[in-house]
Amino acid sequence: MTTYKAINLVARPSGGLIGPDLFDLVKKDIPEVAKNQFLVKQSHMSLDPAMFGWMSADTESYIPPVALGDVMRSSGIGEIVESNHDDFNVGDRVMGMMGWQEYYLSDGTGLNKVTAPLPDEAILSVFALPGLTATQGLYSIGKPQKGETLVVSGAAGSVGSIVGQLAKADGLTVIGVVGSDEKADWVVNELGFDGAINYKTDDIATRLAQLTPKGIDVYFENTGGAIQHHVIARMNAHGRIVVCGMIADYPKAEPDLAPSWIPIIKKRLTIQGFTMPDHFGEVPALLEKLTPYVMQGKIKYRAHILDGFDEAMTGLNLFFTGKNKGKLIVKL
Amino acid sequence: MTTYKAINLVARPSGGLIGPDLFDLVKKDIPEVAKNQFLVKQSHMSLDPAMFGWMSADTESYIPPVALGDVMRSSGIGEIVESNHDDFNVGDRVMGMMGWQEYYLSDGTGLNKVTAPLPDEAILSVFALPGLTATQGLYSIGKPQKGETLVVSGAAGSVGSIVGQLAKADGLTVIGVVGSDEKADWVVNELGFDGAINYKTDDIATRLAQLTPKGIDVYFENTGGAIQHHVIARMNAHGRIVVCGMIADYPKAEPDLAPSWIPIIKKRLTIQGFTMPDHFGEVPALLEKLTPYVMQGKIKYRAHILDGFDEAMTGLNLFFTGKNKGKLIVKL
Repeated sequence: MTTYKAINLVARPSGGLIGPDLFDLVKKDIPEVAKNQFLVKQSHMSLDPAMFGWMSADTESYIPPVALGDVMRSSGIGEIVESNHDDFNVGDRVMGMMGWQEYYLSDGTGLNKVTAPLPDEAILSVFALPGLTATQGLYSIGKPQKGETLVVSGAAGSVGSIVGQLAKADGLTVIGVVGSDEKADWVVNELGFDGAINYKTDDIATRLAQLTPKGIDVYFENTGGAIQHHVIARMNAHGRIVVCGMIADYPKAEPDLAPSWIPIIKKRLTIQGFTMPDHFGEVPALLEKLTPYVMQGKIKYRAHILDGFDEAMTGLNLFFTGKNKGKLIVKL
Repeated sequence: MTTYKAINLVARPSGGLIGPDLFDLVKKDIPEVAKNQFLVKQSHMSLDPAMFGWMSADTESYIPPVALGDVMRSSGIGEIVESNHDDFNVGDRVMGMMGWQEYYLSDGTGLNKVTAPLPDEAILSVFALPGLTATQGLYSIGKPQKGETLVVSGAAGSVGSIVGQLAKADGLTVIGVVGSDEKADWVVNELGFDGAINYKTDDIATRLAQLTPKGIDVYFENTGGAIQHHVIARMNAHGRIVVCGMIADYPKAEPDLAPSWIPIIKKRLTIQGFTMPDHFGEVPALLEKLTPYVMQGKIKYRAHILDGFDEAMTGLNLFFTGKNKGKLIVKL
């Protein structure tokens, strides 16, 4: 084989679902590996909600959008198949932003070696963006204290499931908001959450009141949607709201409005947003924080594997339909 | 004179204006002054937006509401006219929460002596709740940095005018949002703000864009209303929003909704509410911070004096109509 497949972004989403019309599937020649370079064969690519931002033309976002005609940006994991680099050897596993392509030529910039004896799925599900995001947001903004109550939306998602498990391990009461009974069952019976709300079928206000009799101290927002309004009404004084994702609103031309700021005063709340690119320098400290929880078996995950490179193009829509079960990963 | 006037709260506001129907004007006998007590004759009472919260039945607020039948809560300043207390002498000036009444019997709890050689109006306008509130919110949440741009709503109000002047003295570009051309003129030509927006007559988006070419780093919210949405759109990355008051929404049965949280993520904003009762322990430090600005002549104020005790009952409505010019004070 002397060619490989890559997917270029050729149009920007205009609201609504992500389809193959936004992309161009191309074949490229496998490049020569020069001095101080190496070639990675990707084995798994990660699909993350942040990619909606990278596809859009919004220049106010935290990192520049992908230029039209460029390979779609994504993180992934793979094995080095050829190397002229002193620090990277054939057979090494590496992780990083390699984009939607089967092969990736690198001089090492931005790639990290993976040495943990865990399968690719575990690495991408816990030690990559989801685990780093959960750890950064929960501890630097959420400041969870034993005995407090935390509510997390998108609770069965890759970030939300880790947030909830970290908080449970720290002695908080944890309530997850999910979009199906199957996910509710998973977060409660597999992950050990104290309760779950199916926002599609439950009376949210009633159920939230039942599950949070002492009010809510920390809210970790991954989705947007009506839950915001119900949570604000039950926040305790000095509560913290971590704004990590608004997936329910990304496909809308006009996002929904948020709750009035009056309770922010009355309850002295803090609402803070964050994105991981601001904190890449803190990754070693975040991994140091996260690793003991994983080693003690306190962080379970599930990966939703899409089989085949081409699946990347429509796979992102699972975030909108909520039909993904666990971390979305494309297996090459 | 052996009786004095007091105003009791007898009903709670139900949205809309504050009228005499909520109050009962009573006459009381001037009390005996026992051992370790003293009697204050109030000279000026302060009217503050926080009083709307104290009148309401909202048990989630930061301090308990005034019980029906009790004297309406307020801060004020006055002179001791009789004393059986070792630490407080006849002729001393004192300040504190003395309520809507002409005389106040005290054992000293919660009252502070006023020794600064400034008129009552200056004390209530700068060194009481307005100045403390401005200093706490601006420095602990707003974290202003020289060269940044700050926007403050309610800019001609008692808190907003001090916020803007502190920020100007610290080397920020300061834009005030006001409700009349007279107020715009005052904050720009008297207080030295860099610009003002009349939210009632200006095209807010256009004017805000003209006045904040480098975007907005700090927003100090005193009012609520449409300005929120325009400001969020121009916030810079890592901007701070201090939520101090929502006067425009307090009289509404259903407060207006706030901007979507999507920009909170994209720009990594922090939105934080606060109220002074949480920070009464920090008052000495706040006064230490504020005093040099005042002594250097950097903090101008203007007081809007309502002449006569009974004016208190309808005076609060000036916050809703915006017709107050400066710190609202009732002169007894």
